[in-house]
Amino acid sequence: MKKNISGYLKERKTVIDKELSSLLATPKGYLKTIYTAMNHALKGGKRVRPILCLACAEAAGGKAKDALKAACAIEIIHSYSLVHDDLPCMDNDDYRRGRLSCHKKFGIANAVLTGDALLTCAFNILCYATKSSSVNMRLIEVLSYAAGTHGMIGGQAADIVDDKKNLAMQEYINIRKTGALIAASCKIGAISIKAEKKDIESLFKFGEHIGLVFQIVDDIIDNEGLAKIMSKKHAFEYAESLTLKAKALIIAGFGKKAAPLCAIADFVLNRTH
Amino acid sequence: MKKNISGYLKERKTVIDKELSSLLATPKGYLKTIYTAMNHALKGGKRVRPILCLACAEAAGGKAKDALKAACAIEIIHSYSLVHDDLPCMDNDDYRRGRLSCHKKFGIANAVLTGDALLTCAFNILCYATKSSSVNMRLIEVLSYAAGTHGMIGGQAADIVDDKKNLAMQEYINIRKTGALIAASCKIGAISIKAEKKDIESLFKFGEHIGLVFQIVDDIIDNEGLAKIMSKKHAFEYAESLTLKAKALIIAGFGKKAAPLCAIADFVLNRTH
Repeated sequence: MKKNISGYLKERKTVIDKELSSLLATPKGYLKTIYTAMNHALKGGKRVRPILCLACAEAAGGKAKDALKAACAIEIIHSYSLVHDDLPCMDNDDYRRGRLSCHKKFGIANAVLTGDALLTCAFNILCYATKSSSVNMRLIEVLSYAAGTHGMIGGQAADIVDDKKNLAMQEYINIRKTGALIAASCKIGAISIKAEKKDIESLFKFGEHIGLVFQIVDDIIDNEGLAKIMSKKHAFEYAESLTLKAKALIIAGFGKKAAPLCAIADFVLNRTH
Repeated sequence: MKKNISGYLKERKTVIDKELSSLLATPKGYLKTIYTAMNHALKGGKRVRPILCLACAEAAGGKAKDALKAACAIEIIHSYSLVHDDLPCMDNDDYRRGRLSCHKKFGIANAVLTGDALLTCAFNILCYATKSSSVNMRLIEVLSYAAGTHGMIGGQAADIVDDKKNLAMQEYINIRKTGALIAASCKIGAISIKAEKKDIESLFKFGEHIGLVFQIVDDIIDNEGLAKIMSKKHAFEYAESLTLKAKALIIAGFGKKAAPLCAIADFVLNRTH
């Protein structure tokens, strides 16, 4: 698996990108601009979250295609958060994923609306994500919790409260701002294919570890957050230990079927951009 | 009913405000600011949408309390849209509902996040809105459609495309920007209490008319949109004819039980602020 990880990720990205394009096909008329902006915001990501979602569906014994719509809804939520994070009032970033950020290309008002539209449409997509309405309901429950004040938005809100952060506060932020959505991606993959409760739980736990690793590695790359507080070396050792824990957990639970998830975990730990 | 409408609206507003406060109780710690901002954004509205939702639940033979959480979710969606509409990049309004607008009081970054938080939490609340998960699912379907690109956001997106609007484009915007959420409020009230399909449909139709009336009267008050294109007098005559149609529709469907909805319809038509 290890040597094939880049091929695996590329192939999965193609499947996800195709589904995203079909879910957000641009209509004619007055809605053309907002759909063009929504599609612009979605372009070019690594698709780590939806790929984790599909891999968890498979690890738990299901088919990736049964989690595909839900995986796309997660990527849409992630993309909305980037559009709003890039706004001048937030991080004021002119570029995102190698392209002009949404507000630079479409104006600030359109970027606010585009984020709102992506967020709203993610929940609409989940209404039709699987054939079971009780499964869809649980997906919405999990995603609205992880993306809300107890997860992603809560982390972001804490992040802008104060510039000076100690270790505990930085960890609080990382767990919520990045970790919550990644953990939810894993859980959603498992729920989509109606996995057993104990499998859902262990994939969620795996996702919590990997989510934290993801943010720590981001911090190491940008020399921010935890990397600044702990030093890059100690931050990496911490991320490494979390990755080991995450892998041990799913190897115990899923044996050989955990191989793709282990490869993704290593990829998340070792990436340099 | 007519003389008692102000008492009726006031009583309903009290019930809704109490439920909203309990749904959005401010926690301690890092989340205090965002919850304070969310509660600020919710304060002071007339609660037309949730009141319509409760009245529709009753007209269709159910109890208002069974639609109360869903009604609150609608008001939360409406409030998020006001927070984002008031931003400097949109309408740049310093005041809202007689108070400082959210970005004036909490800063622009917090206002963007507050809107996002309200939107996300509305869908989370709907997951628990009634005891039936299939009903909750339908509520999410209806609300995410009405609040999204085919409804409210679509109307707002069309509104900022071009400053010069002809009658057809203004009607397109009114139907979506304001009408869609008000029509959904009525539908959601009926769905919450598991009304029959034909009752859901006629309450939805009633809501479509009243939603359009609401925006036309707003336009008349502010001398904008349709009032500018058609003249205030013709705009009012149009709103009046829609109100008559709406009332005829529900009197035919619900008889005496339609009285509160008729009174609300007259209130929407005749309000001066």
